[in-house]
Amino acid sequence: MTKPIFYHAGCTICVEAEQQVAKALNAEIVHLGEQPERLSEAEAAGIKSVPAVLLNGGVFHINFGASLADLKA
Amino acid sequence: MTKPIFYHAGCTICVEAEQQVAKALNAEIVHLGEQPERLSEAEAAGIKSVPAVLLNGGVFHINFGASLADLKA
Repeated sequence: MTKPIFYHAGCTICVEAEQQVAKALNAEIVHLGEQPERLSEAEAAGIKSVPAVLLNGGVFHINFGASLADLKA
Repeated sequence: MTKPIFYHAGCTICVEAEQQVAKALNAEIVHLGEQPERLSEAEAAGIKSVPAVLLNGGVFHINFGASLADLKA
């Protein structure tokens, strides 16, 4: 089982989800605002908005903070 | 820390989120289709759609399966 990855962009909705869900899942935390080079990886995995968790290949968007398209703009 | 609660209604999106996220969080699983008496509890907690996780008082909607309003109809 690969380590879950929690993608976010630092918004308040993202931070709450990070503090609760990402920590509970012991996920790797990726801040796409600070690591824009990982946007293509997130997009390739099927992520449409952040915050989101990639867990065993499944994509789980959590609430809605921002769309990936806006992060790329 | 209270036990997380995963609310769903048995839809395919719900089942995938249940298999992955709810299990990883060791959450109590509530099928609102089979336990409609718990709809008011979910609504009071701030849940707007399912699947969703209630974790330490935080509400985390995961992807979108169905709105709570549709489940009440």
